[in-house]
Amino acid sequence: MARDVSFDRWLDEQHRRQRYDVRRTPLDTLPGWRFCRDTGDLVHSSGRFFSVSGLRATTGFGAEGQRPRSWTQPVIVQREVGLLGILLKEYRGEVHCLLQAKMEPGNLNGLQLSPTVQATRSNFTGVHRGRRVPYTEYFTGDRHGGRVLADSLQSEQGWWFLHKRNRNVVVMTDEDVPALDGFRWLSLRQVGELLRTDHLVNMDSRTVLSTLPRQLLAGPGGVSAPVREDDALHSFTEVLSVLADARFRYELVQEQLPLRKVLEDDTSPWQRTRDGIGRHDGRHFTVLGVSVEAEAREVARWSQPLLAPVAGLAGLLVQRVDGVPHVLLRARVEAGTLNVAEFGPTVQCSPRHLNGRGARRPEFLDTLLAPRAGRVLFDTEQSEEGGRFHHALTRNLIVELDEADEGAARDLPPDFCWVSVPQAQALLRHGNHLNVQARCLMTALTLATR
Amino acid sequence: MARDVSFDRWLDEQHRRQRYDVRRTPLDTLPGWRFCRDTGDLVHSSGRFFSVSGLRATTGFGAEGQRPRSWTQPVIVQREVGLLGILLKEYRGEVHCLLQAKMEPGNLNGLQLSPTVQATRSNFTGVHRGRRVPYTEYFTGDRHGGRVLADSLQSEQGWWFLHKRNRNVVVMTDEDVPALDGFRWLSLRQVGELLRTDHLVNMDSRTVLSTLPRQLLAGPGGVSAPVREDDALHSFTEVLSVLADARFRYELVQEQLPLRKVLEDDTSPWQRTRDGIGRHDGRHFTVLGVSVEAEAREVARWSQPLLAPVAGLAGLLVQRVDGVPHVLLRARVEAGTLNVAEFGPTVQCSPRHLNGRGARRPEFLDTLLAPRAGRVLFDTEQSEEGGRFHHALTRNLIVELDEADEGAARDLPPDFCWVSVPQAQALLRHGNHLNVQARCLMTALTLATR
Repeated sequence: MARDVSFDRWLDEQHRRQRYDVRRTPLDTLPGWRFCRDTGDLVHSSGRFFSVSGLRATTGFGAEGQRPRSWTQPVIVQREVGLLGILLKEYRGEVHCLLQAKMEPGNLNGLQLSPTVQATRSNFTGVHRGRRVPYTEYFTGDRHGGRVLADSLQSEQGWWFLHKRNRNVVVMTDEDVPALDGFRWLSLRQVGELLRTDHLVNMDSRTVLSTLPRQLLAGPGGVSAPVREDDALHSFTEVLSVLADARFRYELVQEQLPLRKVLEDDTSPWQRTRDGIGRHDGRHFTVLGVSVEAEAREVARWSQPLLAPVAGLAGLLVQRVDGVPHVLLRARVEAGTLNVAEFGPTVQCSPRHLNGRGARRPEFLDTLLAPRAGRVLFDTEQSEEGGRFHHALTRNLIVELDEADEGAARDLPPDFCWVSVPQAQALLRHGNHLNVQARCLMTALTLATR
Repeated sequence: MARDVSFDRWLDEQHRRQRYDVRRTPLDTLPGWRFCRDTGDLVHSSGRFFSVSGLRATTGFGAEGQRPRSWTQPVIVQREVGLLGILLKEYRGEVHCLLQAKMEPGNLNGLQLSPTVQATRSNFTGVHRGRRVPYTEYFTGDRHGGRVLADSLQSEQGWWFLHKRNRNVVVMTDEDVPALDGFRWLSLRQVGELLRTDHLVNMDSRTVLSTLPRQLLAGPGGVSAPVREDDALHSFTEVLSVLADARFRYELVQEQLPLRKVLEDDTSPWQRTRDGIGRHDGRHFTVLGVSVEAEAREVARWSQPLLAPVAGLAGLLVQRVDGVPHVLLRARVEAGTLNVAEFGPTVQCSPRHLNGRGARRPEFLDTLLAPRAGRVLFDTEQSEEGGRFHHALTRNLIVELDEADEGAARDLPPDFCWVSVPQAQALLRHGNHLNVQARCLMTALTLATR
């Protein structure tokens, strides 16, 4: 399909109209924010929004049969559950969704396509003292008569957040809903096309789109072709059992600590840097501050910390078994996971793993990077959420292996499971089953590879 | 069905053979346990098993539109996920389950019927230094070739535990598995009958049985008659949405506190008593100590704290809509809930609520206690888990209202939802959707009222 020229023109126009300025500011002097005297946590003067605190995590996951490993790290604590809502409507037989071109301070490229509504509960209650968030009426109360098609609390990055979840909602309306300035109705087919552009469809949109009901996605011959849950290699209960087993075997003890304890511990690699927080070996992430001026946001001027991670790779192996597409998921424990473990993609790693050898090399990484018998379905660099993360780049890679007979899928390492696409979609109706990396890859698979 | 005489004889025999002695012991002098010097938490000298700590909870639930309410209380912290497993086998066309007559120190009547395997992970790893737990081989690894029919982490009492979950597993075997001394194969029909006896089928058995797949329960004309998920008043997504909405609207902030802070706070009703912990108004629960001698347990002699709650009522309204049985569930926030809210039964309250009036009287309580148009399906007093709770008695009440047309189910108060029985069973495949009171009532409904 040819790229929609009018979309490109509209996006250019948005780039021109939504001027903004993001400047690095040392955390020490970040307006509205302070390091709490007692705990050393980085907090907002209102006590709301989020804080950067400390975490001690202990788990048997990744400990390779040894004693559980334990570490401390900074972590973002945001107890409030936010709402990410996408409004759908059928136009001329095609389902469309209402997205907006939105600036977030951590975005590499300023604007990305975000959900119809992307708001913390503070936005609803007006703590920001900013403009009202438009279209919220379709996601609360009687939803203006709209039908809810998906509604669940989904997790966000477990290595950076403690227990963070956002409510992911999809509502179908029959009303004529005009697109306000900055918003645009796009068909699912268009969104699928746009997903193939680096850093265009933001993380919030991708996670909400992963929860779209299967009926909306079914296309002839595509990975979403209508197949039954039963046409799978394993029963749904067996899939759930792999996750339950990981949650049982890998204890995860999480203790929120004063950030001071993490930074002042001589054995910890974490420390205050000239203008932020980081590690002497440069691994994982740093925390930095930014001051923002924006013309088209609910508040025109603000400052905030951002977490700047090293780049990541999230990779998914796909294989048809008797014609039914299956994805290879892996139950993973992350430092801030709410319920011990969730299914992640086949591979989820950072650049230092790419040079790892032997036991330190992630399983299936080589198959993903150089498939001997298969083809690359999707390979795009995407951004993590620009409201919390600075230039957080993840390569999203999907490789389809040649069709397997049933035998080929046996003998997997522990925690891995071939899950049919309909089964994965059934898991996505419930929160905390697939982590955010797996959800974003499911969106790419179901919308951008058909 | 006539009560099985040979079962009664077997149970009498077990009572005679499993002699035990439980003595109240002040917490101060409880062997193996101590109040931690720093925190005042009651802990085991090994640092394992569980502890009694403090909790500050803040939530908008129950605050009736006012500011969120906040309180502190003692709470049991047991991070380890335990395993509750029931082994099934078909004999002569009927599904049987392997239960054991097991003594728990908090049981009113000593022995109750517990799952095939009821073990903490410590039992598996041998921290108890006791005898090996039998039948565990059917619940780990290749399960001796058995098929897993249900496997999920389910919550336990949110008012007494912080984030407690146990893994609930059901495995079907084709092997000939002899019942060891103290164990017995019982048909699901027999278990249904035994559920109608007060304090006989223990809480762990009831929660595991709630996760039995629907196919095993379907009986002609019964509440488990085979109906499709679609034959429901609301779509499955709408049901999930009621829960997601409660999780979004009612913030739940949980802060584990040193127990000392709860007990030494002059504004708190909680205090040390002569031999335990309690409230000056006698509400909610006390914590007491017991010393146990038992002949047929993996350890012959031990001491432990128990939480002794006031009696409770858990009530479920049932109504057929176009012939399909529906249960009235309510999304509830409890102090220790892992993910803000879960569905509880229609009514869940303690005796002081029975005298409440006006806004303090639980919704639907009057309908449950004196149905004008309906009949009582189930009314039995059950015990909560005797390994942690002392004489914890809950009246389990199920009332079926006369068949409604679709209109009758509208205009419910917030957080309530009519959920078809197949939908509730679909929710039960996943953890943390139905709380333990709702699950036990579902077991009574599906096994004991057909």
